[in-house]
Amino acid sequence: MTIYDIAREAGVSIATVSRVLNGGAVSDATRRKVQEILERCDYQPSQVAQGLATRQSKNVAIMTVDIRDVHHAAIAYVIERTMAAAGYGSILCNLGGEPSSAGEYLRALSAQQVDGVFFIGSIFVTPVCQDYITRYIPDTPVMFTNAVLPVKNAYGVLADEAQGIYDAVMRLYRAGRRQIAIVTDSETSSEHNKLEGYLRATSDCDIEPMCFHTERSMQGGQIITNRILHDYPGVDAIQYTEDITAAGGVHTLQQLGVAIPDRVAVIGCNNSIYCTVCYPQLSSVDNRLHETGRRAAEQMIRLLNREGGVERTICLSCGLILRDTTPAM
Amino acid sequence: MTIYDIAREAGVSIATVSRVLNGGAVSDATRRKVQEILERCDYQPSQVAQGLATRQSKNVAIMTVDIRDVHHAAIAYVIERTMAAAGYGSILCNLGGEPSSAGEYLRALSAQQVDGVFFIGSIFVTPVCQDYITRYIPDTPVMFTNAVLPVKNAYGVLADEAQGIYDAVMRLYRAGRRQIAIVTDSETSSEHNKLEGYLRATSDCDIEPMCFHTERSMQGGQIITNRILHDYPGVDAIQYTEDITAAGGVHTLQQLGVAIPDRVAVIGCNNSIYCTVCYPQLSSVDNRLHETGRRAAEQMIRLLNREGGVERTICLSCGLILRDTTPAM
Repeated sequence: MTIYDIAREAGVSIATVSRVLNGGAVSDATRRKVQEILERCDYQPSQVAQGLATRQSKNVAIMTVDIRDVHHAAIAYVIERTMAAAGYGSILCNLGGEPSSAGEYLRALSAQQVDGVFFIGSIFVTPVCQDYITRYIPDTPVMFTNAVLPVKNAYGVLADEAQGIYDAVMRLYRAGRRQIAIVTDSETSSEHNKLEGYLRATSDCDIEPMCFHTERSMQGGQIITNRILHDYPGVDAIQYTEDITAAGGVHTLQQLGVAIPDRVAVIGCNNSIYCTVCYPQLSSVDNRLHETGRRAAEQMIRLLNREGGVERTICLSCGLILRDTTPAM
Repeated sequence: MTIYDIAREAGVSIATVSRVLNGGAVSDATRRKVQEILERCDYQPSQVAQGLATRQSKNVAIMTVDIRDVHHAAIAYVIERTMAAAGYGSILCNLGGEPSSAGEYLRALSAQQVDGVFFIGSIFVTPVCQDYITRYIPDTPVMFTNAVLPVKNAYGVLADEAQGIYDAVMRLYRAGRRQIAIVTDSETSSEHNKLEGYLRATSDCDIEPMCFHTERSMQGGQIITNRILHDYPGVDAIQYTEDITAAGGVHTLQQLGVAIPDRVAVIGCNNSIYCTVCYPQLSSVDNRLHETGRRAAEQMIRLLNREGGVERTICLSCGLILRDTTPAM
């Protein structure tokens, strides 16, 4: 039973039925007649029709590079569950590596009248993305996780990854490590924060910083770790900025017979499931993905409900989860 | 600029603008006037408004237990990318373990007029789920991956996991293994197929079947592997029905100092990223998740386009990816 059928049965226009449904002006007699049919037919209002009337689609979008990345999936999961509990569907968008695809998705989402947009990951903090937001969804609440853009409708929930990496490096120092390398594997703002935390820690400890860069993957971790061990045989700890790259490093150390953590300690970042699958199990900076997703969704719901007091950015503290790749103290 | 603004500017009703947009009956003079304003304003038709006219939302739904499972994410990723290329958004639904949540999601999706629904995983093959489909989306194309339900609007893309496990066990036998155990970790139809393949292989090889069951997790794999090694010290190979459980098994073998694969060979299933993160890297039955997702999305697009020749079920062959937990031959 649709609004068309109700209108035909009542002998009125669909605009009249719509006014009855949405509390608009209509005569008492007509309202009674339409109401009676609506009740008799157990009418379920189409959300699409309601969306046309209210300009709300009751859908939000989750923009991510690739949902197969476990740390993106961890955030997307919580966002979807939290939004579903509040009555919103979540449209998943895997943007891949192409910068233009954000624009294509946002144009389509704008035509769909999505009520809000989440961006997972700081890879979206670019002038191009900012331009797309301004062009296609200037009035739609936008929630970034692990980043924020200077746009009037953009908000963010961030983990203090600089502090997280700082604490991890300080822990390695207190365990007696003096040649602590860092391996970065992307060019995002999140990555710059992590590097800043590392440099601050090495400066505070008065040890030499040793910075390396590779591709974010098992193989990227393997290649760079081989090179580090070859060029700097005295290295006694490696901090990686992503667990999957750290797992590659652990494999190389295992294959070379380098004792973990006695000879070389390893710490990853994201505290993902890779940490427990890896052998030995990987210590990792916990940037609190679950909490990030939950807070991002809660902030979005407040924005959609037009509640006040929504903070522009929320900053969470990182933890450090110690497993088998760091020495006991 | 919305249809309301266009109507106001043209001095006509929104129904008239809608008729112009959707090719309905309207006088030439009115059509010209409305068209001129539409062009001048570079009007982007709202998909919501179009949805009301066409009864299509241009959205599909992806139902999964938990997108954080890497094999669910692998299928969801391909479905979303393929559907996006065809102009469809994908609404992500994490159903969790509660059976009632499928009904709640389907009722909401029905109100949203989603054009099609994907179910990832054979966990949805239950009478309850069948009932929800019949009640809420009786005329919406439903595409199952790794399963199918006997409902008129349901289709499926399946991997022949019985054959995949059969081939894996035969490979272990040909490598000289004679005490080959299997560890299952769920109660789905997919799991029954895998067990059937194992039993057929042990029967063909005339070796004793050794079946064990645990929880699908690292810890589940660790607990059951400890028990197998304790109760059956002669076991020389273990086939697990999921990579994460196999990874738990590998950890236990490593911790006990049991040589992999010389003393005990290990094979997982799903050929997920866990296989490469695990050390040593895990051999695995490849149930072709990417291909499953791609074919499922392509079939769905054919159904949505009302093309003929859509097969009720497609069955893909499984492969076997050999890494470091199986002996060379």
